[in-house]
Amino acid sequence: MARTFASDNNSGAHPAALIAITEANDGHVHAYGDDPWTVRGVRAVRSHVGEDADVFFVFNGTGANCTGLSEVLRPGDCVVTASTAHIATDECGAPERLTGCKVLTVPTADGKLRPADIEPLLGAIGVEHHTQPKVVSISQVTETGKVYGAKQVRALADLAHANGMYLHMDGARLANAAVALDLPIRAFTTDAGVDILSFGGTKNGMLFGEAVCFLTPEISDRFKYERKSGGQLASKMRYIGAQFAAVYGSSVWHECAASANEKAARLAVGAQAAGVELAWPAQANEIFAIVPTASMPALQAVADFYDWEARGANTVVRWVCSWDTTDEDVDRFLAAIPVATGGK
Amino acid sequence: MARTFASDNNSGAHPAALIAITEANDGHVHAYGDDPWTVRGVRAVRSHVGEDADVFFVFNGTGANCTGLSEVLRPGDCVVTASTAHIATDECGAPERLTGCKVLTVPTADGKLRPADIEPLLGAIGVEHHTQPKVVSISQVTETGKVYGAKQVRALADLAHANGMYLHMDGARLANAAVALDLPIRAFTTDAGVDILSFGGTKNGMLFGEAVCFLTPEISDRFKYERKSGGQLASKMRYIGAQFAAVYGSSVWHECAASANEKAARLAVGAQAAGVELAWPAQANEIFAIVPTASMPALQAVADFYDWEARGANTVVRWVCSWDTTDEDVDRFLAAIPVATGGK
Amino acid sequence: MARTFASDNNSGAHPAALIAITEANDGHVHAYGDDPWTVRGVRAVRSHVGEDADVFFVFNGTGANCTGLSEVLRPGDCVVTASTAHIATDECGAPERLTGCKVLTVPTADGKLRPADIEPLLGAIGVEHHTQPKVVSISQVTETGKVYGAKQVRALADLAHANGMYLHMDGARLANAAVALDLPIRAFTTDAGVDILSFGGTKNGMLFGEAVCFLTPEISDRFKYERKSGGQLASKMRYIGAQFAAVYGSSVWHECAASANEKAARLAVGAQAAGVELAWPAQANEIFAIVPTASMPALQAVADFYDWEARGANTVVRWVCSWDTTDEDVDRFLAAIPVATGGK
Amino acid sequence: MARTFASDNNSGAHPAALIAITEANDGHVHAYGDDPWTVRGVRAVRSHVGEDADVFFVFNGTGANCTGLSEVLRPGDCVVTASTAHIATDECGAPERLTGCKVLTVPTADGKLRPADIEPLLGAIGVEHHTQPKVVSISQVTETGKVYGAKQVRALADLAHANGMYLHMDGARLANAAVALDLPIRAFTTDAGVDILSFGGTKNGMLFGEAVCFLTPEISDRFKYERKSGGQLASKMRYIGAQFAAVYGSSVWHECAASANEKAARLAVGAQAAGVELAWPAQANEIFAIVPTASMPALQAVADFYDWEARGANTVVRWVCSWDTTDEDVDRFLAAIPVATGGK
Repeated sequence: MARTFASDNNSGAHPAALIAITEANDGHVHAYGDDPWTVRGVRAVRSHVGEDADVFFVFNGTGANCTGLSEVLRPGDCVVTASTAHIATDECGAPERLTGCKVLTVPTADGKLRPADIEPLLGAIGVEHHTQPKVVSISQVTETGKVYGAKQVRALADLAHANGMYLHMDGARLANAAVALDLPIRAFTTDAGVDILSFGGTKNGMLFGEAVCFLTPEISDRFKYERKSGGQLASKMRYIGAQFAAVYGSSVWHECAASANEKAARLAVGAQAAGVELAWPAQANEIFAIVPTASMPALQAVADFYDWEARGANTVVRWVCSWDTTDEDVDRFLAAIPVATGGK
Repeated sequence: MARTFASDNNSGAHPAALIAITEANDGHVHAYGDDPWTVRGVRAVRSHVGEDADVFFVFNGTGANCTGLSEVLRPGDCVVTASTAHIATDECGAPERLTGCKVLTVPTADGKLRPADIEPLLGAIGVEHHTQPKVVSISQVTETGKVYGAKQVRALADLAHANGMYLHMDGARLANAAVALDLPIRAFTTDAGVDILSFGGTKNGMLFGEAVCFLTPEISDRFKYERKSGGQLASKMRYIGAQFAAVYGSSVWHECAASANEKAARLAVGAQAAGVELAWPAQANEIFAIVPTASMPALQAVADFYDWEARGANTVVRWVCSWDTTDEDVDRFLAAIPVATGGK
Repeated sequence: MARTFASDNNSGAHPAALIAITEANDGHVHAYGDDPWTVRGVRAVRSHVGEDADVFFVFNGTGANCTGLSEVLRPGDCVVTASTAHIATDECGAPERLTGCKVLTVPTADGKLRPADIEPLLGAIGVEHHTQPKVVSISQVTETGKVYGAKQVRALADLAHANGMYLHMDGARLANAAVALDLPIRAFTTDAGVDILSFGGTKNGMLFGEAVCFLTPEISDRFKYERKSGGQLASKMRYIGAQFAAVYGSSVWHECAASANEKAARLAVGAQAAGVELAWPAQANEIFAIVPTASMPALQAVADFYDWEARGANTVVRWVCSWDTTDEDVDRFLAAIPVATGGK
Repeated sequence: MARTFASDNNSGAHPAALIAITEANDGHVHAYGDDPWTVRGVRAVRSHVGEDADVFFVFNGTGANCTGLSEVLRPGDCVVTASTAHIATDECGAPERLTGCKVLTVPTADGKLRPADIEPLLGAIGVEHHTQPKVVSISQVTETGKVYGAKQVRALADLAHANGMYLHMDGARLANAAVALDLPIRAFTTDAGVDILSFGGTKNGMLFGEAVCFLTPEISDRFKYERKSGGQLASKMRYIGAQFAAVYGSSVWHECAASANEKAARLAVGAQAAGVELAWPAQANEIFAIVPTASMPALQAVADFYDWEARGANTVVRWVCSWDTTDEDVDRFLAAIPVATGGK
């Protein structure tokens, strides 16, 4: 099927991931992670987040977020997050179901959480009638395509730690953030005070598989039971480990994310040149553009995408570039803009 | 790594599954199952359980069992199952965690549940102090390597239905049962009254992926939310669909299971010839043999396996054959038996 | 202890409730609700909400709300409510814990939910990534002291029903609303389309005990298991039933609520006369007044109360009158206002 | 209604409890336990279990058991208990629902758990596929009317502690056990190694109310959120505190339990004299007798009771004496035995 701008989940897998799976398909190994491919995958992830990290593979992003959060939550606790966060809006209540705890949402200006958004909630600490803020959760890249700088992450971590909370990062697009920031992953995760990280694989060229990383190791002692009782323990785990080893143990992860970001930038520049205004500046592999609502069918016929929110006669739309998006994909779409929008 | 008799989860994937994944890795498709590979996978599963079945792909067996059960359970209900059942002993409490309901275990003579095991529990129906039996769950093949005949399944279904309950089948080794019974799958599932089926993929030659089948379709109307909120919705679902299409839309599933069963039979016959008694007769791809406990290390050095239960100076051990077990694997192990056990 | 304006939970029980408990303390009766006192209590509640209502007694308001909501919720569903709702802010996450479902909060102008607040959420219906709106929950009286008119309730019920949802009312201060509206309870509950009602007892003169009322009876068929598995089934239920019979089977409920509302009105009028502005008009037994923050300790020394929110150098405070608040309580407090605030 | 032998939950409240409630009904006090009556109630409970105990009041026995267990359980853990335990059979799955954890039942000879019953389960510790034994739960008095001696409790505590587990005691009939053992309560709770105790009030002369006692105080730091989010925080808690102060801060508790046990002994002796065999010896306030099934209606017409289990043409029945059972109640029933059973 033609490549679209609908979602990086619509893309396939990078050849490196496929080859890794084929190579891992060799004879018998112990199930459930006690195998050399899982060891290599863990080693690859640790090369990004530090040797002391406890790394566990799970199936998908919702599973990574929910089991990672559950590890530190107890009855009556809550997770504080932006009202646009994936855990709040796009996981069908899986966090509440799997943790039994409230996801307490805070409105934000742009999808990024800031210490000032959290401070008003701290008064609940110690009062039994209110849920107890135990985790601050941020998405890197945010659902609005924004990237947290390392200092911004650190500020949230400091606030969290000063108040007995943990900082969780939903890193479904972690690689895109690293490229956007031109920083190693650990600079804005481990070194910035993140405690629990959902380390994304699927959106960046893998078939499936994510890693839950505990960067504050002493908190992960029960995670193996958490993962198993949460339905996220893969029996043939070697296929996840092998992919992580191939993609994150080489430069493939960076090439994939860099390409996606670069195509998004090309799309942003071209769209603006064609008279399309961006809703806000592009930072990683997602563009939020303002197009006449009437123009959407014609544009979607060229390459599908989703709407984000209505703005009068216009619609803010989301265009996502994937690791496999090409210059031709972008240019074909750009060429259609003037016709569809009646623009320049 | 050398092939063992430890678990069919230790085996890799059949080439057909790998090829299918590679073929499915073509451009963009809609995420979350709205793609042609998923359609083909569903079609393949339906060819075994009937066109009216509602079929949903999930990641793993625990996920299949728990979300399938949850679809029909409500607070205060319970699932009745054998005390040896995988959902009772090997899922780390995932059923209780994900459903909030009790797994009510019944001791059985041989790992198979019979109507007489369930009847004493029916008195609880309508009494608010007791959990309400809502589902009978059986494993096909059982964890003891036994196979339910179609009539035995029907008897359980009739009892369940007559008392307002559903019959759930954990079909992690469904294919091995079909081969052992020499029956089409639907003969002992859909046609025998099973309502909810965990249709196994992983153990029979796939990399990952199971299907939850609702054979009584009107009960599955909320399952898409169940699956998503249970963390079991694959974003790049095409890779599960493609494997099911390749393995269960061809004769591969039957070849895999037939080979595994055949090697198990060879192992059983050979072991008995070498003076090893079976704990009970072999029916599918698992052998339960009685060996001197002292002989285990020497045997495990040839091909690893797990112990099942102690019996004085002996141990009942479990030997599992996989789709890729060879005659040579079996014969090498058989050759070691006399030396290890001091037998014939 | 002196009477305060802190909470109607701080008041004791009306003599009628105490007498009822003493009378009910006669010999043996069946436990768990199969007793004549429970029958009388149910009859009393039904006299307010209709003969067809299914009425179940539970221990407390959180228990009533959570079990009542759980009866109609399934995994992946959500409850839509005002961001100020008791279930969202004052039950320590009990709804999420006991239902496994999200409480989806909507900001409101004044603590009252309106159809326009809910309509933007309806787009999520049928989309598996989002929680499914299944219940609209309102508090009568609201946490801001506002009262929904019968037509306002009906408008919410119509919206809910048109979209496959139920309307739940947290009626912890139901009696105060009835008095404020000068309507029978059923006029703004059963007759206005409410499906599930937490019928308040404790705050209006009882020692403990609330009733969960299903006004759409066919939805309550599993509630007895819901209540028991939710830890809300009283063994010696007669003591709840007897109180409801005494308080709601006579005019006591109305006298209690009328008195509380009347004292609140006296307090509002007097405070305004003393130069204190109300944050918004008083409707039932709670006053929200704007006082200089510096004046609070002096006022709280006369009669304790809680702050609601800061407004610069002032604080919005909440003054709650109870069934047993006296004119003297009010007047003593009013007399202290000028001194404390330096007002008229 | 006439007094029966059906359940000690069928009895009413002791006058001391009623008087206490009336006395506590004086003016306003802080809600939710910050009141002098609750302080006195806690003091009374501590006089039995030690000054260092953390004591929290809840509504009922199921609430006490479930919140107390939940405080120390995490996902993937299990509670080991006798298959006859109240938490396993008579709480409609509330423990699983509220904790998300498995209640792992062990068959016992007589309803009492012994170290040897638990030892075979210890092999699961550390293996992620199996639920992790975290709590051993025993009932004192057991559901079979048996009483654990202090040494028996200690042996279980030692086994639990040596394996990283806690010992929980469901003390719904704690007072009856103390009388039967002729020991202070702390001798077989705090001093015998119990970590978490459900301290029973309702069955021993109170209207409602139980106490969760943490005898290993450092484990209760989150219990206030546990209780609130579990729906077990009473707003007008003074009425529970006042009852505990009256009943357990005086000799009333002992008189009530001693009387119940004494009547049960009278019943046992009398029944045996009338030719009725006991299923096993009576120890506290419950008798398990073997009567011809055909004789039951005639006996139940004199004083109601429940059947326990069938034994051919006979039935093992349970006769429970309450704090208010009289000699006349017993003798009237005994007089009916020869007629009903055709016995001596």
